[in-house]
Amino acid sequence: MTRMTILTEAELRRIVPLDREAVACVEDAFRALATRAVAMPPILRLDIPEHRGEVDVKTAYVPGLDGFAIKISPGFFDNPKIGLPSTNGMMVLLSSRTGLVQALLIDNGYLTDVRTAAAGAVAARHLSREDSSVAAIFGAGMQARLQLEALALVRPIRAARLWARDAAKAEAAAQALAEKLGFPVTTTTDPKAAVAGADIIVTTTPSAAPILEAEWLQPGQHVTAMGSDAEHKNELDPQAIARATYVADRLSQTRRLGELHHAIVAGLVAPDAGFAELGQVIAGQKAGRTRADEITIADLTGTGIQDTAIATLAHARARAANAGTIFES
Amino acid sequence: MTRMTILTEAELRRIVPLDREAVACVEDAFRALATRAVAMPPILRLDIPEHRGEVDVKTAYVPGLDGFAIKISPGFFDNPKIGLPSTNGMMVLLSSRTGLVQALLIDNGYLTDVRTAAAGAVAARHLSREDSSVAAIFGAGMQARLQLEALALVRPIRAARLWARDAAKAEAAAQALAEKLGFPVTTTTDPKAAVAGADIIVTTTPSAAPILEAEWLQPGQHVTAMGSDAEHKNELDPQAIARATYVADRLSQTRRLGELHHAIVAGLVAPDAGFAELGQVIAGQKAGRTRADEITIADLTGTGIQDTAIATLAHARARAANAGTIFES
Repeated sequence: MTRMTILTEAELRRIVPLDREAVACVEDAFRALATRAVAMPPILRLDIPEHRGEVDVKTAYVPGLDGFAIKISPGFFDNPKIGLPSTNGMMVLLSSRTGLVQALLIDNGYLTDVRTAAAGAVAARHLSREDSSVAAIFGAGMQARLQLEALALVRPIRAARLWARDAAKAEAAAQALAEKLGFPVTTTTDPKAAVAGADIIVTTTPSAAPILEAEWLQPGQHVTAMGSDAEHKNELDPQAIARATYVADRLSQTRRLGELHHAIVAGLVAPDAGFAELGQVIAGQKAGRTRADEITIADLTGTGIQDTAIATLAHARARAANAGTIFES
Repeated sequence: MTRMTILTEAELRRIVPLDREAVACVEDAFRALATRAVAMPPILRLDIPEHRGEVDVKTAYVPGLDGFAIKISPGFFDNPKIGLPSTNGMMVLLSSRTGLVQALLIDNGYLTDVRTAAAGAVAARHLSREDSSVAAIFGAGMQARLQLEALALVRPIRAARLWARDAAKAEAAAQALAEKLGFPVTTTTDPKAAVAGADIIVTTTPSAAPILEAEWLQPGQHVTAMGSDAEHKNELDPQAIARATYVADRLSQTRRLGELHHAIVAGLVAPDAGFAELGQVIAGQKAGRTRADEITIADLTGTGIQDTAIATLAHARARAANAGTIFES
């Protein structure tokens, strides 16, 4: 007999907010990546060009966790023409011990939003100065909002600036964030001004050309670039990578898909140059920030361990709250 | 809003029996593989050695079909110790146009059984002699039974012999098949005797060493080897490949995982030697059997197009029969 819990997006939004426990479970997963025999195969990718569609399937097994997630992320870019969102998707949580399906998380990408923001918090906690209080956010989408919320969970943020190409969208995001977080969030049309005096800068755009110049960076700043998850995406001036202390979420992946990729293509970094991974910094195996006046960069492309971590948390919370629909067959 | 149909194994067994339509949909998918822009990425594979577990994820997009399946196939080989089957799994059917989930097929591997047997029927229809009436089956498991049932759908089978290492299991399978199919099914402990005088031979075992010798084969016979889906599995004497008209389900896959792999390793076939694929034979692009006294071999390793084909059929049948549970969120 098969017995699984089905959780809807509405239920998941209620039981898995972006909170300290979400950050902690993603941090634990990154630590495991450095210290345990994690299995994380390459992403399965299917393209359907005739409908401008693509699907990514990610998975990872993290020893010590009861389950592992298989995440199905479709992106169909003609959907808005017929009133549907471009992206949706779900996670299937399977038992690490038996392979039986434990839960279907019909999250339409919500859990990905949370685990991606949580990784931003983990990067800031381990790479930014402890007294970081001013944040600059590039972009005005869902991740722009969530990344700032995530920073506020781990650093004493008291002010933020927001820059985005669409000034009206930036203004709306800033207002919503100021109301939610209780500190001033201003907007600017000058990205250089957004960076000046910020302690932490997070770039959250799908840009295909740098939006942050290396020369704008000041000693002591930390940058998290989380927008790039494909070969053509690029938010940071490659010179910034060459000059800063660089940390990857997964080096084999950032060499292909991250900001590092563009520094390699530009000839500024050797293709096989070694860098610390976030998990190694968390585990104390490699250095992250060693001085207050250092510039640090975290390059986040997204990993299957984050999906497994957040899906496991969601399932545990659902059981504790008796949430979801039990489906037996 | 998300709206999907959930179908259980029991419902799927009722609405998707192994029948001519199941064979036809798999045949169409193989034809599409040769004639249309099918997208079939490499299999995603996750290993969990500490629990003797593995998971394969397969997918394929077949132009012309409304949906595409993502199949999750876990195998956890310590499960029988705690009273659970080793293999289970499910398929997620997504819309080819929007990426939205259309159906969850909680089939525990049943649809894979059907589409695998259907491929055996397709191979026999296009490679065996039309007057083939005597079948030999190697193995006594689920596929041994289904492959004989599948042959009976496409050829005028009037007798069958069954050989398996476990004589008692062979006897039980033979009795059940004779009752179901209405023709004599005998067993033998001599595999050579099973082959002698058979028109079609189907090997369905997980053997890691040849169980069918090349010298046993007689002019006019057709062999379908469907047991090998991993590097170490091997049912046919590699000499048989070298001497017969060989057809792959997917050449890039049989070079790595199929019987062809062992013929290449043995130095009997060049690694880049070209052979027809089943879809090309169906489409008339390449020759299959050209003479009654030819020996033909079909090497079936299993493909994602078969999953997409059978999942699409299951969804269409469910809608027509108003079967399954609608889940909205």
